[in-house]
Amino acid sequence: MFEDAIQQLIGQLSRLPGIGPKGAQRIAFHLLDAPPEDVAALVEAIATAKRTVHFCRVCFNLTEDEVCRYCRDQRRDRSQICVVEESKDVVAIERTREYQGLYHVLGGSISPIDNRGPGDLHIRELVQRLDDGAVTEIILATNPNTEGEVTATYLGRLLAPLGLIVSRLASGLPVGGDLEYADEITLGRAFAGRRAAGGQN
Amino acid sequence: MFEDAIQQLIGQLSRLPGIGPKGAQRIAFHLLDAPPEDVAALVEAIATAKRTVHFCRVCFNLTEDEVCRYCRDQRRDRSQICVVEESKDVVAIERTREYQGLYHVLGGSISPIDNRGPGDLHIRELVQRLDDGAVTEIILATNPNTEGEVTATYLGRLLAPLGLIVSRLASGLPVGGDLEYADEITLGRAFAGRRAAGGQN
Repeated sequence: MFEDAIQQLIGQLSRLPGIGPKGAQRIAFHLLDAPPEDVAALVEAIATAKRTVHFCRVCFNLTEDEVCRYCRDQRRDRSQICVVEESKDVVAIERTREYQGLYHVLGGSISPIDNRGPGDLHIRELVQRLDDGAVTEIILATNPNTEGEVTATYLGRLLAPLGLIVSRLASGLPVGGDLEYADEITLGRAFAGRRAAGGQN
Repeated sequence: MFEDAIQQLIGQLSRLPGIGPKGAQRIAFHLLDAPPEDVAALVEAIATAKRTVHFCRVCFNLTEDEVCRYCRDQRRDRSQICVVEESKDVVAIERTREYQGLYHVLGGSISPIDNRGPGDLHIRELVQRLDDGAVTEIILATNPNTEGEVTATYLGRLLAPLGLIVSRLASGLPVGGDLEYADEITLGRAFAGRRAAGGQN
């Protein structure tokens, strides 16, 4: 029904995550309508990111350099490694300003349903980073869902013999949330992880 | 927080319609993760559409040729012109298979709020198309919202002296909808436009 070039464009756009056929059509007509320099800027941003961004040689975070900014930064605590699934998790944790150590990006989680086992993640490289004994603490910050928990459990067992402090991020009620609306698993975790009131955190 | 190239990409993506900051971030990481040939296909589709698609010289529909497929098609009824706001409206009408005439794409609607008057639309070109007397009927198919109604009213008055049949698409209840959920304006229109029951449509 559309001209070939428009149909092609809609097809390509609807392959992007979170964009359905209607959204793809809307974006396609927006692009056809937009000033050429705006569209060139978008195309250039995609091409540049794709060309310059790759994985950090050490921690597999996304970076434009050979080694990412956190691995390079000598002010960061080199005795801690926080293990996450994806680069965007690094960004989320950095936003908290709570953590000053290093990172290790697994590149996903263990998920039998998606046919993804430990061998498909950057676990071997994590173990290699522990070789020189500089790291004394590992914080497992995989997602609080089934795959993330399985991955954390696997890593916990794998790292146990190495004599490191291995911890998992706390589960509990989200700050600002209503107890009434918490699901029973979260509320159960909040009970199990309860702390003495009135003291420090 | 992100690398410059990633931040640039997220910024560009979040300018697209219907894509918020979270969606832009999700698409950016998807693109960084996708096979290079997939990303190249997307970039190529955008560039090709932008390079090859332009307005039909006659009706301002989007086309890859000088004159669009409907204006070229000699089997179409050249006594009718259906006036729409955008190219995508042509596609919607073609999908109904109800209409065999020609089109005229205004390129928007009259909207004082957006500082868009009749002079910003392809109205002069529409009037020029009526010069040779071949067209005898104009169907105003602008959107059934305030701007579309204003545009249709304006065109109705402009075309009245030319002795053509000028009609407006019917307003009423959407087929398959529930009367209970119809807004009062739509329901009011459905009353005002009621037809004899039991006969043909």
